[in-house]
This record gives sequence, structure tokens and C-alpha cells, in this order.
Amino acid sequence: MNKRLLLLSNSTNPGEAYLSWPMPYIKDFLGKPKKILFIPYAGVSISYEDYFTAVAGQMTTLGHEVTGIHQIETDVGFLNKFDAIAIGGGNTFRLADLLQGHHLIETLREAVENGMPYFGWSAGSNIACPTIKTTNDMPIVEPRSFNGLNLIPFQINPHYTEATIPNHGGESREMRLKEFTMVNQDTHVACLPEGSFLRLEGQVLTFGGGGECKVFKHKKSPVLYAPGEDLSWLMRH
Amino acid sequence: MNKRLLLLSNSTNPGEAYLSWPMPYIKDFLGKPKKILFIPYAGVSISYEDYFTAVAGQMTTLGHEVTGIHQIETDVGFLNKFDAIAIGGGNTFRLADLLQGHHLIETLREAVENGMPYFGWSAGSNIACPTIKTTNDMPIVEPRSFNGLNLIPFQINPHYTEATIPNHGGESREMRLKEFTMVNQDTHVACLPEGSFLRLEGQVLTFGGGGECKVFKHKKSPVLYAPGEDLSWLMRH
Repeated sequence: MNKRLLLLSNSTNPGEAYLSWPMPYIKDFLGKPKKILFIPYAGVSISYEDYFTAVAGQMTTLGHEVTGIHQIETDVGFLNKFDAIAIGGGNTFRLADLLQGHHLIETLREAVENGMPYFGWSAGSNIACPTIKTTNDMPIVEPRSFNGLNLIPFQINPHYTEATIPNHGGESREMRLKEFTMVNQDTHVACLPEGSFLRLEGQVLTFGGGGECKVFKHKKSPVLYAPGEDLSWLMRH
Repeated sequence: MNKRLLLLSNSTNPGEAYLSWPMPYIKDFLGKPKKILFIPYAGVSISYEDYFTAVAGQMTTLGHEVTGIHQIETDVGFLNKFDAIAIGGGNTFRLADLLQGHHLIETLREAVENGMPYFGWSAGSNIACPTIKTTNDMPIVEPRSFNGLNLIPFQINPHYTEATIPNHGGESREMRLKEFTMVNQDTHVACLPEGSFLRLEGQVLTFGGGGECKVFKHKKSPVLYAPGEDLSWLMRH
């Protein structure tokens, strides 16, 4: 089966309704009505049920049925009841800790490798990477490891911006990511500005949405990609 | 012996010379000439030697002698040659990983608990905490654990700001720290805006520099402290 991924930078652009910008892309990605398993584990200051309600509210307008993983038993074979997986944003460390603690990493990975469509945003895109080392989140909990679902062989930086807080000395995002490539010299980082995404269909990876996707690699000049451009080569690195 | 700490939010305010704002406070803290062991492990995009040169350049103007830990063997008893420890900023995950990898956590902790003055800035202040869970840094390397030097019983957030990047959806610092307190309900977080510090002399903890120190705790309203105010109660929590 072909691997199918929709990895969104963020759920919501400032000032817009929840999950509104990605709706046409999610609609196109999911196609006919699906039974979606939603994983709200990245949420910290929102209850799982409130998170589920917000996401299900949007997905049902597309005809999909959503179940929160907190509402069911995750016994052997539980994924057979679903035909798509969605992981929402929040704190990536919390998300990794709970997925690892519930022994879900391998289960989810296998299902997606075997063709179950996966979509996620923010932390849900970071966790699709080999590790969570390019998250922007604060490490408020210590996961068992930094390993992610490893659905792609490169790293994503969601919410990418080159803007900084005026008159503040903290590192820019660009500097942080350049430092990442210095200590992880074999790894590419694809930066997704808000309102953009990567979509994988089998071997074909495409950048979409708005803005530009900047790709960092150690000792290489960053390269910019426009919406619609093919990035399939990233799957072979 | 009295424990002595100077924990600075940052090395340098925007537009100023390197380590300039904290110089009077470091001068007052260190007093007569000291042999300082400087640990540059948080540096990623700067070589240890360049980092050492920048720091030593400032410290020698105060009459102190500086040695970089990368210049010596860290055999048993090596700390006896020094009478102060300094840890500089950079990436807190990298710093924790190298301190843990070189088995320095307990050695440094014991020396400071036995009265050797410690000063640090940014990552060097984060690593003084029980854990590195309130760092602002990107987790570009995976340390063995999130444990810090545990020189104080509360957490520091350096470079604290309530400013956000305009028209960008990432979490504010305040929201990140509130989420920290939700999953670490017993732990206080003292936020240090740039240009400020905490100084410990035995049992007496004081906030200094500019701005205000905001203290977060789960289910409590944040409390603000002005420069000169006593925060010794934080050492008993």
C-alpha cells in the first residue's frame, strides 16, 4: 500500500476560525467519508474531550466520523476499526511521552506504513519525524526518548518564521535550526510557515498552502520551495 | 559553607557589548580575584576556544583568571584548582548532554553545595535548576535525562518576555510556563526578564537587575517582584 501523509504546520492562522485554513486540503486528502481516530495527547491546557469536540466539529462537516483515543480501549487490533489517524497540536514532549507510555509508536507506525492515511498539525507533524528534535515546544515533561513515529526520513519545523521579538536577545528560529544541522549533520529540516503543509502520496512529496518551504542541511545553503513544488527527493535522504 | 549563586537571565542585552550589563553584578558577586573554571559546553555555533576567549576577556578586566574546561583534564579533584565556576549560555540540551556525558553533574553540584561560588547565564541558569524543563531552547540533542545541577529547588525561565511575534500562532511564553505548572504542579517557576538575575547568599535569595520577576505556580495567580525584593521563600519550596 502507498503511504499517505498530510503534515500541516498549524491548525489555525491568527484571527481565523479553528482548523479553517487546512479544511480544503484535509477534504482533498481524506476524500470519501472516513472513520478517523483522533489523538489529543498533545493537549495540555485543554481537556481531551474539549479537544475532541473541536476537531470532530470540523471533521463531521466533511462527512467524517471521529473517535477520540481517550474514549476507547486500545487493545490489540483496535486500529482495524478506523481508516485514518489524526494527531493534533499542543506540546510535542507531552505527546511523545504519552504515545510512548501507551506503547502506540510502533502500532501507529505500522498502520501508516501499511497505507492508513495520517494527518497531523504542529506537534502532530513533528511526531511524524524520526525525532522530536525540531519542535518549538518547551520540554515540560520528559519523554522516554526523543523518537517520533519516523514516518518520514527528515525533520519538519512547524510554525516556521524568520520574525523575531523586537529588542529581545533569544535565538532566531533560523539560528536554532542551523544549530540543529550542526549537531545532526546528515538530517534535512523542512520548514513549514503557518498556513502550509507537506503531502506524501506514496513516493511523491509535495509542498502546499502558502508561503515558502525552506530546507536546511549542514554545510548547504538553505533552499526555498514554492507551493506545488515537488520535494520527493527528501524521502530518499 | 554558604551556597553562593548568581543566576543571570542573559549575557547581553540587544545592542550592547558582550556580557556588559551583568559586569557590575559579577564584580560584586565574585569580589577579590578568583580562579574561574568556565564551561562552554552550551555553545553550538561557537568553538569552545572562541567562547572562552570572549568570556575570559571580560573576566580578566575584573582581575580574575579564567580556565576553560576544554583546556584541562577533568580528573579526580580537578576542581580544587579553582575557586569559582561559570557556565555560559547556548543550548541547554547540549549543555546537559555534555555535563552528563562527562559525569560532571554530581562533581559540580557537590562543589557548589560546599561553598564554591557559581554563576551562569541563560542555559547556565537553567542548568542550575532541578531540571531543564523550563528552557526556551530547541531540543537539538537528546540528553541522558532532563536533570540539572539541582542547586535550587525551583525552576528559572531565562530571557522571559510576554511579547510575541505579531501575526504568528505559536504559544506565548506565559502559556508555555502555565502548561509547565499544570504538569509540574508542585514546582515554582521564577521568570527572569533580560537584564535581571537571582542571587543566593546562603539562605537569602534576592532578585536584581531590571524589570520584574514573575513567579508562576499551579493554581496560583502569578506574583511580581521588583529588583531588591527578597525571594528566599522560594528556597524552602
